[in-house]
Amino acid sequence: MLLPTISLPDQQIKALLLDKINNKTKPLGALGQLEKLALQIGLVQQTLEPQLKHPHMVVFAASHGIASEGVSAYPQEVTYQMVLNFLGGGAAVNVFTKQHGIQLTLVDAGVDHDFEPHPQLIQAKINYGTRSFLNETAMSEAECMACMAKGKEIVQAIKQQNCNVIGFGEMGIGNTSSAAVLMSKLLNIPLALCTGRGTGLDDMQFQKKNRVLQQALDFHQNVANHPLKVLQAFGGFEIAMMAGAMLEAASAGMLVLVDGFISSVAFLCAYKMDANIMPYAVFCHQSDEQGHALLLQELKATPLLRLSMRLGEGTGCAVAYPLLQSAVTFLYEMASFESAGVSNKS
Amino acid sequence: MLLPTISLPDQQIKALLLDKINNKTKPLGALGQLEKLALQIGLVQQTLEPQLKHPHMVVFAASHGIASEGVSAYPQEVTYQMVLNFLGGGAAVNVFTKQHGIQLTLVDAGVDHDFEPHPQLIQAKINYGTRSFLNETAMSEAECMACMAKGKEIVQAIKQQNCNVIGFGEMGIGNTSSAAVLMSKLLNIPLALCTGRGTGLDDMQFQKKNRVLQQALDFHQNVANHPLKVLQAFGGFEIAMMAGAMLEAASAGMLVLVDGFISSVAFLCAYKMDANIMPYAVFCHQSDEQGHALLLQELKATPLLRLSMRLGEGTGCAVAYPLLQSAVTFLYEMASFESAGVSNKS
Repeated sequence: MLLPTISLPDQQIKALLLDKINNKTKPLGALGQLEKLALQIGLVQQTLEPQLKHPHMVVFAASHGIASEGVSAYPQEVTYQMVLNFLGGGAAVNVFTKQHGIQLTLVDAGVDHDFEPHPQLIQAKINYGTRSFLNETAMSEAECMACMAKGKEIVQAIKQQNCNVIGFGEMGIGNTSSAAVLMSKLLNIPLALCTGRGTGLDDMQFQKKNRVLQQALDFHQNVANHPLKVLQAFGGFEIAMMAGAMLEAASAGMLVLVDGFISSVAFLCAYKMDANIMPYAVFCHQSDEQGHALLLQELKATPLLRLSMRLGEGTGCAVAYPLLQSAVTFLYEMASFESAGVSNKS
Repeated sequence: MLLPTISLPDQQIKALLLDKINNKTKPLGALGQLEKLALQIGLVQQTLEPQLKHPHMVVFAASHGIASEGVSAYPQEVTYQMVLNFLGGGAAVNVFTKQHGIQLTLVDAGVDHDFEPHPQLIQAKINYGTRSFLNETAMSEAECMACMAKGKEIVQAIKQQNCNVIGFGEMGIGNTSSAAVLMSKLLNIPLALCTGRGTGLDDMQFQKKNRVLQQALDFHQNVANHPLKVLQAFGGFEIAMMAGAMLEAASAGMLVLVDGFISSVAFLCAYKMDANIMPYAVFCHQSDEQGHALLLQELKATPLLRLSMRLGEGTGCAVAYPLLQSAVTFLYEMASFESAGVSNKS
């Protein structure tokens, strides 16, 4: 499989961008992360007048074989039921994307259900859920490659709609389990630091999740520490497809909005394939799911929001989106010291 | 002076609100602070269907005598120049309030400048700046009372416009100095933990600021630890006026959006006059100004945002506002488990 080529943004425009930011009527650096965001967006778009065009949220859904091992607080059918809820407009991500004028697309990456056609749904089913990775690989090599290719194709189609900022959300009962073992394996971090309570496990259930996942890690201990091999071993379809989609988005010069824990693990997989993806990424929200704070730290990423949410679906990206708009807008609309006749620092 | 009466929100509706929140299609608590915010807004408005109406940002500006002691990185004329910049639409708070449809009003609480009439400007000048509090009180008792009364009157007028959510911003070169000594005195916390670099002092200037403020605290050591006395001693006009305005807003059942360090110190003054103000307050942004994190901790307040901004003007309130909208909107628009046909936790 040929990965898309990601170029690092040319740094030549950086001094001009900083100059523009620093001459706005405010003390140096006083807009904090909004200034860093404005600089980043300007660099990605290679312009002093960046714009956010046709923002798009893509939510990848898939079923997980590992869910049959009792690692989740919710039954597996919630995955397809929530896809129907997304298509019906009733989920949190519907509310927040609508609030901010973000187009929402759902992707069936591998849900254990046959969906009727729907204008918001992309049918990209790789299979009816992954296999339980307790004692076999979650997917075949061909399935893993198909995920990556499909993710790329989906982003290419969205890019055609003149979109330059894309959020990556997910839905999949059991996917904090996949994400935890992926993180543990790819970063060589003890599993216990990567697992969390997901949708709300109690103490006993949480212990069981840890036991099951440790057993799975032990079974797959000889898997090479390569993102494609690790994805194949632990899944899920939505995570692999997101990784492929993120790489393509960065390659196309789009801003990559990373959501919560699962989305960040998909980003980690993409990053391990091509570190050049980093400058295109905006980390939107630090989830309450244990493991996410550490993962962001490992990525040296500062999230925009820390609202103790732990829902996924792209909700973190959606609620953070106005901050990206603020970053772009202050660059355009704020007066400079000179234009406003305000005295600069003495 | 008669303080407005603030009633604590009736808790009877709380169980119904929690029920409504908990039945949305998401794991319990998965929307984190947005859920707490939805509950708070519902309680303040005493309804299961809260609304944010005619949001308003009021920016109080004043000059500070203490600024002549060399405690600020910017010259004093920046205060009136920035007011003109606000009226001209070029400051950060203009950009962010416009972005979110928040009406912006400026208040001349005591700027050392005569302004032409302007539809967005309320002329409430108490005096042409406070006196330096280095060796006299910043204001007279009458001036302090006038601030409180004027703040109340301003909020009453805004309330007439059917507004139920109001943000409190400020502008005043030197006002981190007033705020730091107010915080130190009211909370009995060593000054060094309350002072910060304001608009950008270097090490030497910062040392000087600390020296000057400690000298002032020593001079006023016998001032009673009562918010009105402390306000009178250390000013400024905009801080005292904000405190009066915040009390009135809570009394009128409006949401009180607290901005950065100065705005939070004004809130602290109000809180020390009537602790019942607390349930009406939303702490929007934890500023990078040293002292603010500790102040929020003392108030047991969790800010919505921590974006390393340190600008004041109400910018923290403005950029946080979409989160309030998200909190209200998910309560309205999200499906319940029942309505969406999604299985609840097993």
